[in-house]
Amino acid sequence: MIRAFVNGKIYVSFNPKRTAEALLVAFGRVLYVGSSEKVEKIAQELGGEIIDLQSKVVLPGFIDSHMHLDELGMSLNMVDLRGVRSIEELKERVKGYAINASTTWILGHGWDQELFEEKRWPTRWDLDEMVRDKPVMLSRVCLHAAVLNTKAMEMAGLLDLDSPGIMRNEEGEPTGVVKEEAFELAREKFKETLTLEDYKRFIEDGAKFALSNGVTTVGFVSVEESSINALGELNAEGRLPIRVRAYLDPGRREVSERGMYGNTDILQALKKLGIRRGSGGEKLKLNGIKILADGSLGARTAWLSKPYSDAQTEGYPNISRETLETIVKEAHEAGLQVAVHAIGDATMDMILDVYEHLENVEKLRHRIEHASILREDQIERISKLGVVLGVQPHFIITDWWVLERVGEERAKWVYPFKSALKKGIVLGLSTDSPIESINPWETVYAAVTRGKYEEVPLYKHTPNEALTLEEALHAYTHGSAYILGEESELGTLEEGKLADFIVVDRDPFEVE
Amino acid sequence: MIRAFVNGKIYVSFNPKRTAEALLVAFGRVLYVGSSEKVEKIAQELGGEIIDLQSKVVLPGFIDSHMHLDELGMSLNMVDLRGVRSIEELKERVKGYAINASTTWILGHGWDQELFEEKRWPTRWDLDEMVRDKPVMLSRVCLHAAVLNTKAMEMAGLLDLDSPGIMRNEEGEPTGVVKEEAFELAREKFKETLTLEDYKRFIEDGAKFALSNGVTTVGFVSVEESSINALGELNAEGRLPIRVRAYLDPGRREVSERGMYGNTDILQALKKLGIRRGSGGEKLKLNGIKILADGSLGARTAWLSKPYSDAQTEGYPNISRETLETIVKEAHEAGLQVAVHAIGDATMDMILDVYEHLENVEKLRHRIEHASILREDQIERISKLGVVLGVQPHFIITDWWVLERVGEERAKWVYPFKSALKKGIVLGLSTDSPIESINPWETVYAAVTRGKYEEVPLYKHTPNEALTLEEALHAYTHGSAYILGEESELGTLEEGKLADFIVVDRDPFEVE
Repeated sequence: MIRAFVNGKIYVSFNPKRTAEALLVAFGRVLYVGSSEKVEKIAQELGGEIIDLQSKVVLPGFIDSHMHLDELGMSLNMVDLRGVRSIEELKERVKGYAINASTTWILGHGWDQELFEEKRWPTRWDLDEMVRDKPVMLSRVCLHAAVLNTKAMEMAGLLDLDSPGIMRNEEGEPTGVVKEEAFELAREKFKETLTLEDYKRFIEDGAKFALSNGVTTVGFVSVEESSINALGELNAEGRLPIRVRAYLDPGRREVSERGMYGNTDILQALKKLGIRRGSGGEKLKLNGIKILADGSLGARTAWLSKPYSDAQTEGYPNISRETLETIVKEAHEAGLQVAVHAIGDATMDMILDVYEHLENVEKLRHRIEHASILREDQIERISKLGVVLGVQPHFIITDWWVLERVGEERAKWVYPFKSALKKGIVLGLSTDSPIESINPWETVYAAVTRGKYEEVPLYKHTPNEALTLEEALHAYTHGSAYILGEESELGTLEEGKLADFIVVDRDPFEVE
Repeated sequence: MIRAFVNGKIYVSFNPKRTAEALLVAFGRVLYVGSSEKVEKIAQELGGEIIDLQSKVVLPGFIDSHMHLDELGMSLNMVDLRGVRSIEELKERVKGYAINASTTWILGHGWDQELFEEKRWPTRWDLDEMVRDKPVMLSRVCLHAAVLNTKAMEMAGLLDLDSPGIMRNEEGEPTGVVKEEAFELAREKFKETLTLEDYKRFIEDGAKFALSNGVTTVGFVSVEESSINALGELNAEGRLPIRVRAYLDPGRREVSERGMYGNTDILQALKKLGIRRGSGGEKLKLNGIKILADGSLGARTAWLSKPYSDAQTEGYPNISRETLETIVKEAHEAGLQVAVHAIGDATMDMILDVYEHLENVEKLRHRIEHASILREDQIERISKLGVVLGVQPHFIITDWWVLERVGEERAKWVYPFKSALKKGIVLGLSTDSPIESINPWETVYAAVTRGKYEEVPLYKHTPNEALTLEEALHAYTHGSAYILGEESELGTLEEGKLADFIVVDRDPFEVE
């Protein structure tokens, strides 16, 4: 009930940078910040536990404001096939993994037939030797192909399908290797056959892994119906080790004449039950909805106001302006927060237009995610509207090729984090995990160095957009809390706030 | 953040009966129970506030486990017309009330034309003189008739309707007085035209009034969609002064071939969003659903296993066994708590049969409400199943005529509270407010005296079913908390629990 943490170097907040020696925690909240002596004395009087931090460094827990708990959990429930040198070795790994796997499907990732001694592609018959009763799906390192066992091919209906993505042997039989659309079909079938228990397992594993990386709260985005249910059940069973703030898909995404967002069943259910941003308990809150308004720079599906520099296309939006406006307005009026994925600047224009038409737009602190290409005029508008950004600094290093896509002219608009901060825009940091590693230090590093040491071409064009360590840590704690609408509860270790903190082995301000 | 309450007589719990001098409260929870000296000292060290109780008596807040916040609020937003002696006086009262009324409709209750000097019924023209622009509806003391102004008659479509319930003058014009079905129609129309603001007003007023009566948590039952929304918005705005645990109507109740519960939209929305008993925050939780399985003893619509003693009927259920089973099973499997209104013993048999067929029935601690007629064999079954009861002791006094309905043979089965407790059944006390007064002391009095001083005939047949004051207070705090599934958080002032308490002017154990 009451615990004293003494003799530490505790970063209470990063902006202003403030440290203390000891914390008194009651009911999971910071009751008092002060000297070890006083904190220890009060804990003793109240019969509380005393924990000696032995001069270790304490930081507010990281808040990953944009990530996918279910997908992260899935990625953790896979056999790692990177660097495998032969089909025999692949079979051994799958066999060893399958023995202890409790999930419905056996998943793996990372093989590359170029590395195999046998100089051939793996087949379903190879996999059948190891696992027959459960579906197996192993994706190739490129994620554009996979090999399935016979059970998985059957379940996905791929044995009788006529598709160019299904590889065949000389007899015309499907070999189990599937590419592109056929792989996509297999993935859809895989998702459909997952049970509630599978989803609970994925989410719990993802949450535990996040916590082991120092992440104490996540903004879980694009939550689909099966994951909502799994979250609800885990929460009821007291099995969520971290705080989860969910941004739900407004409905089952479908390809129809009404576009990807013709169905808004989930949004309707939220309205029916009067759920609003911040509804829920300290562990789980349903904050609002997430809309995927465009694609990615990598696939040239992010929507730009001028064509890509390396192709004759501007990309395109995933949603019409009308539909976006309808859904955003409906959510806003219902008191729900909206988070819109906008990578290209044309998408950014569209969502800013929509946000500008809302009454009292600042009230719900609507979010824009990624904001990869951000023109100066847009920074002004965002600042004026009180809209907040959920950004992923590690994209700078992973997407090292970004200049090829947008050219040198637009380079200064790419991830202009410092410019946004200067204009008073609040940034929440995140990883989009499993897209980027959930490890916050990798993201902090990327925010502070911007690929300088990896010789990322973007660095030279935007050295002034690097954040200081204070700024990065502040954005990853208080900033993320702010964009979740909970800066009064989370993000620092000030008195009264939830005592979410981590103990680290070194002081981040004292490393090279 | 931290407050010390010292120099009091604090009832920490009633079973065992335990008192203390002082409480230390942090973050709304009891951090420490002990001596005034120690509590004061720690509060000073932490810079907390010190409140001197000046020897006053402190009790855990009452938990009214079954009531209607919206209806209570409506009843508070009415002009009181009881005892009015003339139509002129009625007009004056309505006029005075209407000036400050912010609700869409002007409501009143309690007139009786027998008392009027004018020796006639009031008319819509009388009311039109006072209020023309807003609908006015004033119910007669018996609740079987009302007088409406022209605006209300228009809105309810009653000016052109051919119904025996619409009173007419010699010219055949509707006078504004409506009875039975016509009054029911007017009431439905009234509900339809209420705005979200009206509902918020009703619920907030009801909650404030409950709190002013020493009630700190309510089980709000039969919550319809408009009230769910109002609750959500009030909660988001920080305007709920008490804790609310909601039991929702499974869907809009309708008269169709599928019966009253053909529509289960709300239940479907709860399932879609993974909401389970206890989901939500400390202020507002959606606990589950409420089903009205039969009627009342007064109207002889409660379903008995043998005919009423004063009529040739056994009453009837509102729902088929099949439908009840389907809905209960669906809710149970979704992790939602079910509360079923069962007044007659035949209804009790039906719901016990349904509960018995559930897997792990005790897990969700399903409720039965009212349980007015309870046979010995049923007490055994309830006890065995771990089902809990939400009861209203004041019915004993209000329904003083109950023996006429059930006869002397069955008298010992009526509200057998002590027998239930002896069998280990947990009772939560409540008022069904506004059916009974929200004032907990009236209910405590009824539980302890069972109408002895009002010479209620039932008393003589069931003197041994009276509860002791300890038992009544325990059931009204810890018992109610238990049936809400929150006995670890609410119902006593032990360390760690929510510090919901009231200060009273006298020690209940020291009054006559």
